[in-house]
This record gives sequence, structure tokens and C-alpha cells, in this order.
Amino acid sequence: MTKSALQIARAAYQPKLPKALRGNVKAVEGAPTQSVADQEAIKELFPNTYGIPVITFEESAENVQLPAINVGVILSGGQAPGGHNVISGIFDGIKKLNPESKLYGFILGPGGLVEHNYKELTADIIDEYRNTGGFDIIGSGRTKLEKESQFDKGLEILKQLNIQALVIIGGDDSNTNACVLAEYYAAKNTGVQVIGCPKTIDGDLKNEMIEASFGFDTACKVYSEVIGNIERDCNSARKYWHFIKLMGRSASHIALECALQTQPNLCIISEEVEAKNMSLDDVVTYIAQAVANRAAQGNNYGTVLIPEGLIEFIPAMKKLIAELNDFLAANAEEFAHIKKSHQRDYIISKLSKENAEIYASLPEGVARQLTLDRDPHGNVQVSLIETEKLLSDMVAVKLAQWKDEGKYVGKFAAQHHFFGYEGRCAAPSNYDADYCYLLGYTASRLIAAGKTGYMSSVRNTTAPVGEWIAGGVPITMMMNMERRHGEMKPVIQKALVKLDGAPFKRFAEMRDQWTITTDYVYPGPIQYFGPTEVCDQPTKTLLLEQGKA
Amino acid sequence: MTKSALQIARAAYQPKLPKALRGNVKAVEGAPTQSVADQEAIKELFPNTYGIPVITFEESAENVQLPAINVGVILSGGQAPGGHNVISGIFDGIKKLNPESKLYGFILGPGGLVEHNYKELTADIIDEYRNTGGFDIIGSGRTKLEKESQFDKGLEILKQLNIQALVIIGGDDSNTNACVLAEYYAAKNTGVQVIGCPKTIDGDLKNEMIEASFGFDTACKVYSEVIGNIERDCNSARKYWHFIKLMGRSASHIALECALQTQPNLCIISEEVEAKNMSLDDVVTYIAQAVANRAAQGNNYGTVLIPEGLIEFIPAMKKLIAELNDFLAANAEEFAHIKKSHQRDYIISKLSKENAEIYASLPEGVARQLTLDRDPHGNVQVSLIETEKLLSDMVAVKLAQWKDEGKYVGKFAAQHHFFGYEGRCAAPSNYDADYCYLLGYTASRLIAAGKTGYMSSVRNTTAPVGEWIAGGVPITMMMNMERRHGEMKPVIQKALVKLDGAPFKRFAEMRDQWTITTDYVYPGPIQYFGPTEVCDQPTKTLLLEQGKA
Repeated sequence: MTKSALQIARAAYQPKLPKALRGNVKAVEGAPTQSVADQEAIKELFPNTYGIPVITFEESAENVQLPAINVGVILSGGQAPGGHNVISGIFDGIKKLNPESKLYGFILGPGGLVEHNYKELTADIIDEYRNTGGFDIIGSGRTKLEKESQFDKGLEILKQLNIQALVIIGGDDSNTNACVLAEYYAAKNTGVQVIGCPKTIDGDLKNEMIEASFGFDTACKVYSEVIGNIERDCNSARKYWHFIKLMGRSASHIALECALQTQPNLCIISEEVEAKNMSLDDVVTYIAQAVANRAAQGNNYGTVLIPEGLIEFIPAMKKLIAELNDFLAANAEEFAHIKKSHQRDYIISKLSKENAEIYASLPEGVARQLTLDRDPHGNVQVSLIETEKLLSDMVAVKLAQWKDEGKYVGKFAAQHHFFGYEGRCAAPSNYDADYCYLLGYTASRLIAAGKTGYMSSVRNTTAPVGEWIAGGVPITMMMNMERRHGEMKPVIQKALVKLDGAPFKRFAEMRDQWTITTDYVYPGPIQYFGPTEVCDQPTKTLLLEQGKA
Repeated sequence: MTKSALQIARAAYQPKLPKALRGNVKAVEGAPTQSVADQEAIKELFPNTYGIPVITFEESAENVQLPAINVGVILSGGQAPGGHNVISGIFDGIKKLNPESKLYGFILGPGGLVEHNYKELTADIIDEYRNTGGFDIIGSGRTKLEKESQFDKGLEILKQLNIQALVIIGGDDSNTNACVLAEYYAAKNTGVQVIGCPKTIDGDLKNEMIEASFGFDTACKVYSEVIGNIERDCNSARKYWHFIKLMGRSASHIALECALQTQPNLCIISEEVEAKNMSLDDVVTYIAQAVANRAAQGNNYGTVLIPEGLIEFIPAMKKLIAELNDFLAANAEEFAHIKKSHQRDYIISKLSKENAEIYASLPEGVARQLTLDRDPHGNVQVSLIETEKLLSDMVAVKLAQWKDEGKYVGKFAAQHHFFGYEGRCAAPSNYDADYCYLLGYTASRLIAAGKTGYMSSVRNTTAPVGEWIAGGVPITMMMNMERRHGEMKPVIQKALVKLDGAPFKRFAEMRDQWTITTDYVYPGPIQYFGPTEVCDQPTKTLLLEQGKA
């Protein structure tokens, strides 16, 4: 592995620990807990891991020597900055408990557990990966751990390696599955504990006890760096509207955070679009109106942030996609024989009136994507729709109409960007480096305390690290019942952008001003070595949520 | 202007000056110079600015007090990191010569001079922009200063503001025009000097006396940061080939520098494609073979860097585009009446056999772009071709063939990226902050020495700043005669990637290894405050060119 100068310098960074974890530690139990909703149903499904207390770690005078333990770790789902620090935190934690403890990594995600694909993570391996981005130390994967046959298969290798605890680093679904696994292993008296860690750049795994999912901080800072650079270009050249799509399908936290950091002229928040029951045309009109207003002042340029998942939050589009999915699944054979040039008219003739009208209003390319590019289950692949181009094409059409009607005078030219892969594997910011290391270190303490079905929890993270609070939250506490693929399932409640929350409210207060004036902010690249106000700031979202901005 | 924490911290950075410029300075003249080629023709066109000596500034014991001077500055063409520092260097330079000196900025590029659109740049304005990216202090523009009527119109405002010297910050064409303007003003005894500064992220304005065009360092570092992040994602998820196009149409310096910094699996260098007379199919086969070779080892992932201008460097594509331009210009009327679905066949029937075959081999979308999207002169807009998608589509087709033939076993899925606007307005790296400031400061010294037709030159920049050498190079010295729009014109010779130069040779030595093994390097974001080996490195290109890497 050839290393860059920054990587070498950064390897020496020692994540900070809160005071409570620096010496001997005791686990303090709170009151019994309940799930956020559907208490009876969740309780029934998780008899062994329901109702258990929140854990907080505090300083202790007692020096407990523990026997060596073997721990397994899995990286599940999409990459997020800081995964390697979670693993080094676990490693340092279990080694501190007993230098004979061992850490095993399962290769390429949950599949590695089922397929018995693993490697021991020794000190020399761990040291190569401290404070680096990526999940390449063991790789990640999207296999879902859901079936008992998988659990049993996994148990074989856990027993063989004498692993007493498994740490699953993943998003809401992976942590849900971690809890199901914890329950299963507890019910079977296997002696294997399961601990989850909250990972996702999307920021949608959070609640009162989980302030942030790791990676959100770093990813948003990388995106904000390049958005700021584009804004500065926009403001220098003064000739383009930049449409910037940001990763994050199920919630708009990333777009909102980047908007708070960079103050673009416009930012669409999917949750608001849904709440206001906006149509695609409403969104297009909203953007076009802003373009026209700026043009009236002679400013034919601007920046728009768009969340990746927007299309699915537009109620009418959601209905259209649902009907298309049903129709194409039922008529795949017939549709396959329709000539390409007739497909559009064919679809229009078959849809309900309401959906047919919407479908007919879509630009040709998008209409084609909605019918041609389907996944193996026959479903429309919404993630392939280039929403940033769709919107700018439709805005251009609308502006041309308005020009004919004398309502718009200006030039409209667009550039398109999509940022996702650019930030998921960035080296963690100081915040994520510390937060992740501590999530891992805390996981080792939960294991030492004999806990299972917990998520590692680190709170009070807008304070200096010394004052951060480490502990564990029962995963069942975050669950409710939701319909998934036609069945009611216990799942961790997804955290969407709250329209009455402080981050959105701040944005809503300022956005009209940003649309008209040009008050771009240029955050610049993540800094690791400079003054603390530059290097150690948490996200605006977190500061606002905690009333600190 | 709302400022980020980094911007506030960075404002305090004081660019360093070489020892020779810290106190009193004298201009030392070298021997008379010649143009790089076509000496007689250039000499005839530039009787007043040809043959003048190279200037070097050295320490002097003599303290010369100069009268106040008024200077104008223009930002020309695409943005590049560090433009604001050139301006602050000029400002500090002329204020040091005499605190009564004034700096005027012409607004939105050369057009500002012609249209008398300007503002005085006072200390409070300058201080807002030190060490920031962008050209937004006065904006930039692409108006070409070529006609005597423009020169005369410009002279009016220069005389009105009592401006004795104009600094034009731009690329090769803008500096060519600066020299034509210098010659014109000299021939007319206007008393107005003209000085150029070498700007372009593309890196194609360089030679023995101009080590680098400013912005190349910063832009390449921003691109390398995100490329490295994508590589790390690639190496973690192990399921995609990432096709990454990089800005820079006329030369592949950016792609080459980013390849040296990040060690991707593949990087295409346009100059090599042209020199080897490769066809589009050759390029596609080269990439597909690498994909197949990696797949044979179980690695169905990788990264490919592609220079923006590739298509125009493929000799066969260049010929095709030339014939299309001629044909469509001559038959615009007829072509406009051809039905869209028949256009492709129509074009094929009209082209020469050789070009018709190439055209027929192109994916439908690209073929359409080549005939539909034309600029106001009827020319194909090559910059709109999504080369990264074109290549990955064609690679997919080739791999599917090979799969049928049993020559390829693997999965091929691609992601596409295009980086350009992300880096052009980044805040300058320490290198560019120092280099640009010094280019501006040196321009002020050339003005004080009464020079015109010079480009500000700062050399020895791989040494510590104290040892950098500042001076001026006659612009005529870099010129030759080239055919432009059917006419022979004096222009600055463009610096393409030299296939016998050290940067390309290093790349060529290592690339086979990079293709097979995965030895990505993750440079991370530009750092401003850390250890010098992290913060103050010049580009690999420059280090290799100077035999220092």
C-alpha cells in the first residue's frame, strides 16, 4: 500500500477519549425501556432483548481484570467515513481489557459470516488503517442477515473461533437485523452477544440516544467543500445554473446540512415536498420562479441542491411509479413486444388517467428510464433517474414558455453534478475519527459488561470530547412495526428531516434571502491540523438540534 | 459575504517572498531573446517587443522611490485557483513602491476594458479576497482582445484613469493577445505597458521560463482528493468500474498529474493516443482488456481517468468531426428536414466510406450528439460529448462479445464522474497562494522597471520560497506561427504532455503494475496548517520535470 503524505501524517492521530473511559469503567444501568411504538408487538418478538435498560459508562475505582475475549466484526452496507476507526476502537478496547483478546473481521460484509470468510485483525493490520477512510480493511457487502439458516451457519464459525461477541457496523436495516440476531442467539443460549454501531452518511439513523450516524459529518463536509468551490465558480463566471444532486435516498439530511454549510440559492427538501403534497410541476415551477426572479436582477446564475430521493417523495410520482411497477410486472410479456417508438403511447394508453397525464408530461428520456431500466424484480430503478437533469430540462421548458409569455427575460444554461462516491470513503474528520473510535471502544465495554442487543451510543458530542457520554441503547427501544414487502416487520424507525426541527427551521428562515442575494459560503476542504474552530466543528445539523447554533 | 471558519483562518496567511524581493530590488537584463520558432515572422509582427531580454530581479542596495502609478488588472477566461492572490500581489507591490499608487480592476474580463466597466480595488476590498479561490473580486470573461478598435476603446479609459500599465491574467491565448496589445500600445507611443500572468488549470502554458501556470497545482490536488476517495470506495465495495473524466481539453496534464498522485488502474493520455494513431476502438479495446485481465483475477472493479479532450486527439475521430462540420455546414437546410429517426442513416450515406464506418460504429447517443448539438458556427460541440459514458458503453459492448467468445468471465458495472468546476475555484494551496502572490508582486516590479510585452515569471519553485527566482520573460520568446481559423497567426506555443518527458515516462513505467495490482494512493484534502511535507509539496509533474522525484 503506497501512502500519501497526509495519510502518513494522519496515521499518528490518537483519537481522544472522554474522561469517563480513560481509566477503570463501570456500567451504570438506567430504567427499563420501551420501544418507540408498537410496544406489545415488539416485546413479543424480542422477549430476551426487550425492555432492557440504557447503559452509561462511568469512572470506577475498581480495577477489574477480564479474561481474554474473541470478538468478530462486520461492516454492512454502503461505505461511510470512520469505519476503520470503529474497528480500531474495538481492537484497542478489547486489548486493554486483556492483551490476549482477539479480533476477527468477516470479509465483504454479513456474507463473510455466513460463508465463513474471515481474517484475524492483528495490531500491524489495524495500524495500517487508523484514521483512514474506506471499508477496505475487510470490505463491506449488502447481504442481509435475516434467515435462521444464516444465523445457524454464522454460529458455526463463531463457535469454531470461540467468538463471544459480534459487532455489526451498519445502517438502520443492518442494526435491525443485528437485534434479530441478538435475540436469536440469546433465545438459543448460544452465549454470543451482538452489538450494533450506527453507520450511514445519510444521517437517517438517529434519535434521542443516537445523536448521529457516523460518516455523516465527514461526507457532508466533503460535499460542502466541492459545492462551495462550484458556488465560487458560479459567482465568478456568472453564466450557469448548477444543479447538484446529493446522495441520500431515504432522507434529505445531507442536502439540508450542505445547504446550511454553503448557502446555495435553492435547496429542495424531499420531506417538505411530500408534506406539502407538491407535484413535479410544482417543484419545477418553484425552481423556475427563482431563476426568473434572479434573472430579473441580471443574475443568470445560481446553485440548486437536490436530494437523490426526491422523485420518490413526490406523492404523484410515487403513485405513478407504483402503477408502472404493477402494470409492467403483470404485462412484461406484452410490453416486450411493443416497438420502442410506440412504448410511450402504449404506456399512456394503459395507465389510469391521472398517472397517464403525469407520465405524458415527463421528458422523453425520463419516461424511457421509468419503463426500460427495471431491476430483476421488474421494479423501476428510481436511483438511475438523473433527477438533476430531469429538473433542469423541465425548468428550461418552463422558462421558454414564460419567455414567450413575456414573463421571463434571461439566459438559462445548466451544469449538472452528482456527489456521492466522492465522500463515502473520505478519511474521517476529527469529529468522525473521535466519534467512530469511541463507538468501537464503547462496543468493547458493552461486550465486557455482558450486554447483547445494544447499539453503541456516544452522546453530548457538541461538547469537547472529554465530556462525551458513552454507553449502550437497547436496539428494541428504537423500533416500531412497519410494512415491508407486504409484511409487518419490526424495524428501527428511520429519522427523516423534521419540518419542525431546528435545522429545517433555520434553513426555512434564511432560504428566501439566499435565493435572491448571493451569499454563498465556501467551507473549503476538511482540515486536520489547524485551529480548533476550523478542525473540530460538528455539523450545523447537530449544533442546531442541540440548540448550540 | 458570510465567511466559513477556514476562510477566516486562511485570510491571515501571508504569502512568502523570495529573499531577492524582500528589500530593494533591481532588474537585471539577460541577453536578447528569440521566439521558439518562425523568428522572422514574429519579429516583423512585433518590432517593439521582439528580441528584448529576459529580466531577473535581484537584491539591490539602492533605495529607489518611485512616483505613484495607476495599474489596471483583467482576469481573462476560465477560473483558476489563486487569481485573487495575483491581484493582491500586484496591489501590495505597487503600494510598496508608492502608497499613493492605485489599482483598478476591469469587470467581467477583457470586455470590462472595452466597455469601460471597472472599479478601484482598495485595501478593504483586497483584504476580503486574500488567499481565496474564485475570480469573483472582479469576475472574468471570454471576450477576446484582438481588434484595434477594442485596443483604442480600451486606451480611452486607461488614459482617463491615468493607468500606466495593464496586467492581463490569462491562458495562452489571452497572453498572446496581451502581447499584441503591448506591441500596439508601444507602436503608438501611448505610454501604456502590458504585462501578462500565466493562468490555467490545464497546465498547458509552460516552458523553460514559465514552470507552471497557476491553478494547476490546486485544481489537481482537489481532483486527486475526490479521485482518491472514489478509489477507496471502489476498493471497499469491489463492484464498480469508475470512469472519471477530468477537465482540460487541449492537453492531458491534469489527467497525468492526477494519475501520478492517485495511481488508478488506467489513465488515458490523449497525446499518446494521437502519437500512436489509435482509433476509438483501440482505446476501447485497451480498457476492455484491462477489465478482462482484472476480472480473471476476480477483481471486477477499477478506476479509469480520461482527459476531457480525448475525442479530438483520436486522429480518426478528428477527421470524422472535420467532415461532419463541413458537411453539416454546407447542407444545414437539407439536414434540418430529415426525420430524426432517419438522420443516422442519412449521415452514413453522405460521409466518405472511412468516416461512415466510424460513425456507424458509435453508440446511438454519441452519434446523435455529433450531429444535433452544434455551436452557433455549425460546429460539433465536442465538449458536450460524455466521453466517460461513451467509453464505458463501448467497453460493455466489447466485453459482452468477449463473454460470448469465452474470452471474458466477469461482471462489468460502471459509475461515471466528471470533475472540472469542482477544482477551478478552490482556495489556493500554499504553493499556488505563494506562486500567485509572487506572480502579481513581480508584475508590479516589471511595471516599475518600465517593461512591456513581458510575462511575469517565477522559477525554481520546487525549492523553498526564499530561493524562488522572480523576473520577466518576453512573451514573443514563447511564440510561433500557427494556423487558426484558416489564417497564420502568432501564438504562444501550447505545452502538451511530452511523451519523452519525465512525468509521462514515470507514469509509463508504473502503469502496467497499477492496472493489475490495486495500489491506489489516497492524497486526501489540501491541508493549509499541517506539516510541510503535507502542506507545501508542488505537483508530481513539476518535481519530475525538475528531476526531484
